[in-house]
Amino acid sequence: MGLQDTICAGLEKIDSKGKFLEESWERPEGGGGRSRVMREGKVFEQGGVNFSEVHGEELPPSIIKQRPEAKGHNWFATGTSMVLHPRNPYIPTVHLNYRYFEAGPVWWFGGGADLTPYYPYLNDTRHFHQVHKQACDSVNPELHKVFKPWCDEYFFLKHRNESRGVGGIFFDYQDGSGCLYKGQNPKGAASIASQKLEDQKLSWEELFSLAKACGEAFLPSYLPIIEKRQTQAFSERERNFQLYRRGRYVEFNLVWDRGTIFGLQTNGRTESILMSLPPLVRWEYGYKASVNSREALLTDIFTKPQDWFTDKTLEEKCRPFKAID
Amino acid sequence: MGLQDTICAGLEKIDSKGKFLEESWERPEGGGGRSRVMREGKVFEQGGVNFSEVHGEELPPSIIKQRPEAKGHNWFATGTSMVLHPRNPYIPTVHLNYRYFEAGPVWWFGGGADLTPYYPYLNDTRHFHQVHKQACDSVNPELHKVFKPWCDEYFFLKHRNESRGVGGIFFDYQDGSGCLYKGQNPKGAASIASQKLEDQKLSWEELFSLAKACGEAFLPSYLPIIEKRQTQAFSERERNFQLYRRGRYVEFNLVWDRGTIFGLQTNGRTESILMSLPPLVRWEYGYKASVNSREALLTDIFTKPQDWFTDKTLEEKCRPFKAID
Repeated sequence: MGLQDTICAGLEKIDSKGKFLEESWERPEGGGGRSRVMREGKVFEQGGVNFSEVHGEELPPSIIKQRPEAKGHNWFATGTSMVLHPRNPYIPTVHLNYRYFEAGPVWWFGGGADLTPYYPYLNDTRHFHQVHKQACDSVNPELHKVFKPWCDEYFFLKHRNESRGVGGIFFDYQDGSGCLYKGQNPKGAASIASQKLEDQKLSWEELFSLAKACGEAFLPSYLPIIEKRQTQAFSERERNFQLYRRGRYVEFNLVWDRGTIFGLQTNGRTESILMSLPPLVRWEYGYKASVNSREALLTDIFTKPQDWFTDKTLEEKCRPFKAID
Repeated sequence: MGLQDTICAGLEKIDSKGKFLEESWERPEGGGGRSRVMREGKVFEQGGVNFSEVHGEELPPSIIKQRPEAKGHNWFATGTSMVLHPRNPYIPTVHLNYRYFEAGPVWWFGGGADLTPYYPYLNDTRHFHQVHKQACDSVNPELHKVFKPWCDEYFFLKHRNESRGVGGIFFDYQDGSGCLYKGQNPKGAASIASQKLEDQKLSWEELFSLAKACGEAFLPSYLPIIEKRQTQAFSERERNFQLYRRGRYVEFNLVWDRGTIFGLQTNGRTESILMSLPPLVRWEYGYKASVNSREALLTDIFTKPQDWFTDKTLEEKCRPFKAID
């Protein structure tokens, strides 16, 4: 709740016009939350920041499959999540979620943050990654090399063969057992990075510090991008492309995001779950960005997993579009 | 292909401005299709009419589960599908799909058509149902009492507790075995209606006639609604509500529609599959239609399964809103 407060205050300050409206809710089966939405701000066309703390008697089968020790036990879960849809197409959409579960003998942390630009800039991307890397490094300098590729793997639209955006960090089922990567692709970069780190066993305290540090990294990772881009003029072309690309956000959340699908199929609070969907979206059959356009730069370079810090060819690729800074 | 031609010709005629653009495509694993899209017509903001005829070596597990006899056999599938998104909020969105499968010793027909109004009229709804009932009746007068509730059951958004629209007809796995209902809800109205009809065994020829009659029923079921509504004036309020409700169409197709999800998760032709999505969509957190408004009439009455022909209270409920005709 502290993180939710801090983030909302920071966002209201930079928006200067929009205010978050809060709705508190209770879950009949146990627990509740507070949903906060800003609509039609100056910077944010829509933004939602949710907190929830819920409990129940038996976790759903999909989670029990991952954590069989939780079977037959009461459970407790708490988390903060956020999606922001800015109006200006030069400011990226951004998502954050950090969560903690307990069930009988087991507990775990999960979460992450990822950035989804429309007209990307290399230095904005690097900044977002750098601040999140520092947050991970503050707990253990080996973590980021697993959580960065795990994010690339999770926020991926298989039916488009595209990343959702430029990524960030993601982790799940962090239970102190020393296995950092618990994803679904044993041959992927996150798994390979994790195999080299089998001795990195994190305590509950370290994992709590991690979630805290990453949550606190959000404002410094994102506000400077807003400051830099918010006065950049755009026309109907950029707005149309933004609305079109927002369709990808909807496709990811409704087709691939396990949390969203699970929530919808198991009687979750629909309005809070779907707060992540953009306020206005466009689909266009057979759209293709012109070759060598600013729009094509997004899918040619920025929605593919990249080594943002060390790949020096990225600058060459971005320079013709003035997309470094 | 004949049905696709007939439908496209009828739609171009009534639109008077928009033309379908065709894209033929081949499937690397076998077969192909022709996708036709109309954009920015006078009546239709967007419309897609697809034909495909594809074959392969082994059906996917989800279908094999339903038809175990198909296992290990080559398969063949053909179908026509259509979704139309009119511009005027008084004209409903409409969907049609008829398909036929063969795999070794088994074959089956499936499909249906359903209507999704924004500002519904009772008589439009009755007309759409009446024409489809006649098509079913032309083959066997017992079919409609199963296919109408089956449609209500299939086109249902569980996370909203709403029907997608006013329904129509739906059937699947019709293989001449005499079991009309092969859906997932043994206690539902379609199942109960079907149990009374256990002697209704339909031949291949009858089922082919059914698919043909239903496909040919589409234009007479829908064009009169366009004719009646296309000159009805609307303002920003109606347009906004239409864009908001189109969000439900996206939610159904991406979260619940087995065909869409299956296609996206198994390397189908993404652009053709997602042609069903509306060209412009709006989401709004916590929207509620005012009590006793024209908008509330939709969710109070029209997105609940109803007995459109015989329930006489519907007229009383619609009269205050001038929503009978």
